[in-house]
Amino acid sequence: GSDLLQQERNQSNLDVDKLAEFLFTKECLDRQDKLLNILRAEKVFDKSQNYFNGRNERILDALSRAKRLRQLSVQHAWTQEEYQMANELISEPTPYGLHASMFLVTLRDQGTPEQHNLFLEKAQKYEYIGCYAQTELGHGSNVRGLETTATWNQEDRTFILHSPHLTASKWWIGSLGRTANYAVVMAQLKINSKSYGPHPFVVQIRDLKTHEPLENVHVGDIGPKFGYNTMDNGFLLLNRVKVPHVNMLARFSSVDPQTGKYLRPSSPSLVYGTLTYVRSTIVMQAGSVLARGVTIATRYCAVRRQFQDRDAEGSDTGEDQVLNYTMVQIRLLPLLAATFALHFTGKGMMVLYQENQKRMAGDAGKASDTDRGAGPEELHPGTDLLADLHATSCGLKALASTTAAEGLEVCRRACGGHGYSSFSGIGSWYADYLPTTTWEGDNYMLTQQVARYLLKSARSVLQGTAADNDTTRILHHFLARQDMGAAFDVLTSDTDLVAAFAWRTAFLTFEALKHRDDDKKSWNSLLVDFWRLSTAHSQYLVVKNFHAALDDPMTKSSLDPETLSLLHKLFRLHALHTLEREASEFFASAATTVRQIQLAHTKAVMKLLEEIRPHAVRLVDAWRFPDWQLDSSLGRYDGKVYEDMFYRASELNPLNQVTFDPYPDSGILVRKDER
Amino acid sequence: GSDLLQQERNQSNLDVDKLAEFLFTKECLDRQDKLLNILRAEKVFDKSQNYFNGRNERILDALSRAKRLRQLSVQHAWTQEEYQMANELISEPTPYGLHASMFLVTLRDQGTPEQHNLFLEKAQKYEYIGCYAQTELGHGSNVRGLETTATWNQEDRTFILHSPHLTASKWWIGSLGRTANYAVVMAQLKINSKSYGPHPFVVQIRDLKTHEPLENVHVGDIGPKFGYNTMDNGFLLLNRVKVPHVNMLARFSSVDPQTGKYLRPSSPSLVYGTLTYVRSTIVMQAGSVLARGVTIATRYCAVRRQFQDRDAEGSDTGEDQVLNYTMVQIRLLPLLAATFALHFTGKGMMVLYQENQKRMAGDAGKASDTDRGAGPEELHPGTDLLADLHATSCGLKALASTTAAEGLEVCRRACGGHGYSSFSGIGSWYADYLPTTTWEGDNYMLTQQVARYLLKSARSVLQGTAADNDTTRILHHFLARQDMGAAFDVLTSDTDLVAAFAWRTAFLTFEALKHRDDDKKSWNSLLVDFWRLSTAHSQYLVVKNFHAALDDPMTKSSLDPETLSLLHKLFRLHALHTLEREASEFFASAATTVRQIQLAHTKAVMKLLEEIRPHAVRLVDAWRFPDWQLDSSLGRYDGKVYEDMFYRASELNPLNQVTFDPYPDSGILVRKDER
Ligand SMILES: Cc1cc2nc3c(=O)[nH]c(=O)nc-3n(C[C@H](O)[C@H](O)[C@H](O)COP(=O)(O)OP(=O)(O)OC[C@H]3O[C@@H](n4cnc5c(N)ncnc54)[C@H](O)[C@@H]3O)c2cc1C
Ligand SMILES: Cc1cc2nc3c(=O)[nH]c(=O)nc-3n(C[C@H](O)[C@H](O)[C@H](O)COP(=O)(O)OP(=O)(O)OC[C@H]3O[C@@H](n4cnc5c(N)ncnc54)[C@H](O)[C@@H]3O)c2cc1C
Repeated sequence: GSDLLQQERNQSNLDVDKLAEFLFTKECLDRQDKLLNILRAEKVFDKSQNYFNGRNERILDALSRAKRLRQLSVQHAWTQEEYQMANELISEPTPYGLHASMFLVTLRDQGTPEQHNLFLEKAQKYEYIGCYAQTELGHGSNVRGLETTATWNQEDRTFILHSPHLTASKWWIGSLGRTANYAVVMAQLKINSKSYGPHPFVVQIRDLKTHEPLENVHVGDIGPKFGYNTMDNGFLLLNRVKVPHVNMLARFSSVDPQTGKYLRPSSPSLVYGTLTYVRSTIVMQAGSVLARGVTIATRYCAVRRQFQDRDAEGSDTGEDQVLNYTMVQIRLLPLLAATFALHFTGKGMMVLYQENQKRMAGDAGKASDTDRGAGPEELHPGTDLLADLHATSCGLKALASTTAAEGLEVCRRACGGHGYSSFSGIGSWYADYLPTTTWEGDNYMLTQQVARYLLKSARSVLQGTAADNDTTRILHHFLARQDMGAAFDVLTSDTDLVAAFAWRTAFLTFEALKHRDDDKKSWNSLLVDFWRLSTAHSQYLVVKNFHAALDDPMTKSSLDPETLSLLHKLFRLHALHTLEREASEFFASAATTVRQIQLAHTKAVMKLLEEIRPHAVRLVDAWRFPDWQLDSSLGRYDGKVYEDMFYRASELNPLNQVTFDPYPDSGILVRKDER
Repeated sequence: GSDLLQQERNQSNLDVDKLAEFLFTKECLDRQDKLLNILRAEKVFDKSQNYFNGRNERILDALSRAKRLRQLSVQHAWTQEEYQMANELISEPTPYGLHASMFLVTLRDQGTPEQHNLFLEKAQKYEYIGCYAQTELGHGSNVRGLETTATWNQEDRTFILHSPHLTASKWWIGSLGRTANYAVVMAQLKINSKSYGPHPFVVQIRDLKTHEPLENVHVGDIGPKFGYNTMDNGFLLLNRVKVPHVNMLARFSSVDPQTGKYLRPSSPSLVYGTLTYVRSTIVMQAGSVLARGVTIATRYCAVRRQFQDRDAEGSDTGEDQVLNYTMVQIRLLPLLAATFALHFTGKGMMVLYQENQKRMAGDAGKASDTDRGAGPEELHPGTDLLADLHATSCGLKALASTTAAEGLEVCRRACGGHGYSSFSGIGSWYADYLPTTTWEGDNYMLTQQVARYLLKSARSVLQGTAADNDTTRILHHFLARQDMGAAFDVLTSDTDLVAAFAWRTAFLTFEALKHRDDDKKSWNSLLVDFWRLSTAHSQYLVVKNFHAALDDPMTKSSLDPETLSLLHKLFRLHALHTLEREASEFFASAATTVRQIQLAHTKAVMKLLEEIRPHAVRLVDAWRFPDWQLDSSLGRYDGKVYEDMFYRASELNPLNQVTFDPYPDSGILVRKDER
């Protein structure tokens, strides 16, 4: 194994350090090293039994790690970023997960200064440990359908929180099951029998001393899951639990304690912003999530040898590295390209987001509705620039997380049988990542929001009332040229390649608009078209962002020409492979001819695989995952795959301390147990 | 939930019992009921803690279930089929798995009568418990590359089995880790330093009394996996272990004990047959494997309600069942159609296989090479009919198991957040099924064999030396018509629809042939084309088989016209949805026009979804999975989804007996443990 990886690293002169620094900054890589050393020195973070342990052991381990991490964080005065990075190195969800993300953030963003005093300060000190309880057994995507009620009581100025049915039970709430003593509970606000929709309430659920549930609170862990088993996702039933007026988070809307009058949200577009921010993070992370799988599979497929190449000259050259088979390359290298594509896209979105936040700081937002996961056609984004960013973030979140999740399984399967072993390190990572396709907006649902936005934009373009932004520009362009046709030179011109993606989006947008506005088709009957439209648009955005990143003068000045040219090949592989997979929409929209697609395959994609192949190992090296983080026999930096598999199986595996009695008629099951 | 499923069942008059009997026979369904009653009565088969237990508990439970099942099998004198069916109801791999399948079968098929006496009889009585040890740490697909040696020793007429390197360690061997006391070991036969390739040897590995490994045998469990954790897949290193002459399984090839001369295989095509049989079984099972997921997701999506349909009249009709959303239908209903398509295809293959076996019984096979997973271009199937069936079985195994595995994940995700809970019953089923895409020939590797066969057939067609079979007929037809073009009426004629799939296969075959024979492209450079070709061909076979099954007079006489018409709609949905997904190859081959594909979507597929939708629940009911088998909160026959989720989480979940201490600075982790 070691020789082969050495050989791989010798055959390419890609400057790994330089690329890594360009991707992550030197500062960030140094920080990672520093943190890694701290974590490795602590026995509690030892990973060697992770794959063997059952859920009960794992979650307790995760709790003690979470505690220790918090201590270290205080001790070393880590920033939020450092704390986050340490968590990523540990690479397992912990029972503090939702406290550290959603609970603190919600208190901060949606609380008034008084509420910060009252709740946030204690929460920051981990005296209050909390969670974000929105989803119920009966409702997830449809937040408006939540059944938990918070009824205003003018007499004693309290709210009564209540779960009227079994389906009103909060469900899936991270950190709630066994850990949290507080929760932000989303409940239907009711004043004088009138409903005002879901609002956030701070509710204490467990005794701060005994950690037993308070009276009228029925709370617990929802049980094992496909992954995420180091987290205690929980349920919560409230039986007329009273909280004071101050427990309704009141930054955006509130109830006047004197009159019981409901006060309208003041600046919803800020919340809107948070959602956009969270989704941008998911896009950015998707690149690195996928890169873990690609790193493992690429290294392993360079070490794994199987069969001799029958066409090769000389027959005693030994077996071929499976990474040399084009059928392995076509599975892995486009994913390798996708990791960079997603990375640059996420970065691009973050920049846009931050620009917008600045612009908005003074400006009271004009967006009208902000609930995540609102129903079809219920969300009417304001006309400001944020609307474009919001739609973008929905579509990209869906595309990026689907790409990462499904890509990880492709990586796992590319490793053949050994990919199925826990020691591959891909399976558990995949299983833990999978819910990202469902939370923060189910990926299928999100596509409706993108379509709605595109339809709206198209209508405004047709009416001549459109704001000027990238989306309206591509729609305009299409309208101006559709009768002439396109004739994009996708095989040689990069800008034409990007333009072909834009053309397809525009074509599908106007098709959908025709169905909806002219043919008067029902919204439901068009969901499949909308999903395709959203996917097409998001693919365009990724291709555009990747292209823009390489075109950026900053990039050109930071990287040497060879690295740049390699990244450029990855860009082309990503775009052309996507084009090939989605060929029929490119034909149908007349963005390309059938012949071009065939050539894209035979002349371009297959050739790019060959050109990128020698650099594959160095390219994954540039993602800079420490072995400790990957925890993978197959993905080891030194290539000692088989030694590590054997060591884990024979030395670390507790089952080998148990001697079975295998005979059907003996009453004994275990003859010896030396664990 | 109950009301909604009742309503679903009322709105369709599909005769569920009749369809079920047609699919499985009444006898078979009665047998299932009988077995179910026996199993449910035994405490050892209680499933209620399965999802909560860790690997060590689960595998011990599985062992005691395997033992009890064996006892019941003896007690009730079950047939092999009944034993198999009971295992399917239990639905988890057990440590006896490989004994009952591969070990017994190999001894039976590859042993001489003397060897049957010596090994098979004891194995049938579970005195010898065995496994099939072929794969090694370093070699899986490439069986010829195995490193374990069996060296013939003329002096004392023994073989010495040896693992020369770490990578020679047997690996992945089911039932070997902790259970087996015997193994069939595939090893490179060496006589006088000459190598004769891999051959099967019977090797005792553990003491029959103490169950401790014998001297010079290093054996153990390989550790946890993505799924399949109730099975002890094992490793095995042999340090010059001696076995007598009789331990080489000698039905097909042998060593003359007097002279040490190697005796050539007599009738390899019989082994060839076994492989075909195993793969046909995988195809047939794939339908039912997938049907489990489709049953769960369909029932749940009929119970789950989320959002109101904005276009619907009357606004207080309550929320919509998510099964009404076309975006859910397009994910589930084509999979429902695929379950039937795979079922009929598997059945069709079995029939062909059995006919062939009969024909071959007298006939010495002419196939030349029979190792499963042989290398590229190494397998030269004989020219007999079996070659067609063999290639068919390779391609279909790959397509069917990929469809089932990936379809299960689509079903899981269609259930939204709750799909991620273990209680959905899909996740663990998926995880256990997944290796089917890798074993019995890695799905990507198998496609090379299909392509090789099709290229060969095309060459023989061009040379006018082709045998007459379905494959050569479609190639002939294409050659005769390619200049005229096709003009298939895929939207109204079923035979044209099937013919369009055949046309695409033929087109891709001749394209690939041109690349290989005229352009002299390397085998490796064409693997991606081969994979597509094999997929296209296999899709054709499934469409053809589904069509033939409905056209069969037996079918027509067994089913009422309404059921037939519904199955016919499923056929069309399956074929047209596949056509749409693979649109670009249908254009490129000129089998259809772009316009036809667009119409296939808007006019046909979307309409079929609507027509099939009301019958969805009854259609899955016809698969007749007992609740006990599904072990799913979401898939319950009675629709009591939420009640069951809540019950399992709050009553069965042991984690809720543990009270955490959540504070970072307290040294205590657990305050109370009442488990
Ligand atoms: C591991 C995990 C952790 C979580 N953590 C939290 C947490 O900490 N706090 C919290 O509040 N929540 C949490 N959630 C819940 C999560 O946010 C929801 O599961 C998610 O919003 C999806 O909602 P749902 O499960 O109700 O899906 P549903 O809305 O029920 O969707 C079911 C199916 O119907 C489809 N569908 C639904 N409506 C439509 C429509 N209008 N049109 C077309 N198709 C439709 C969906 O695409 C899906 O296929 C978590 C979930 C998971 C899995
Ligand atoms: C759960 C489980 C149970 C098993 N049980 C048993 C058992 O009981 N007994 C037993 O003997 N074995 C068993 N196996 C082993 C199984 O048969 C092998 O894993 C399988 O044959 C694949 O071989 P491999 O793992 O060596 O994959 P490899 O051949 O190493 O494949 C690795 C990758 O390279 C690709 N590749 C390899 N060669 C080529 C080529 N020439 N062209 C193109 N691509 C190529 C593959 O597609 C794959 O992506 C089991 C495996 C699993 C996962």
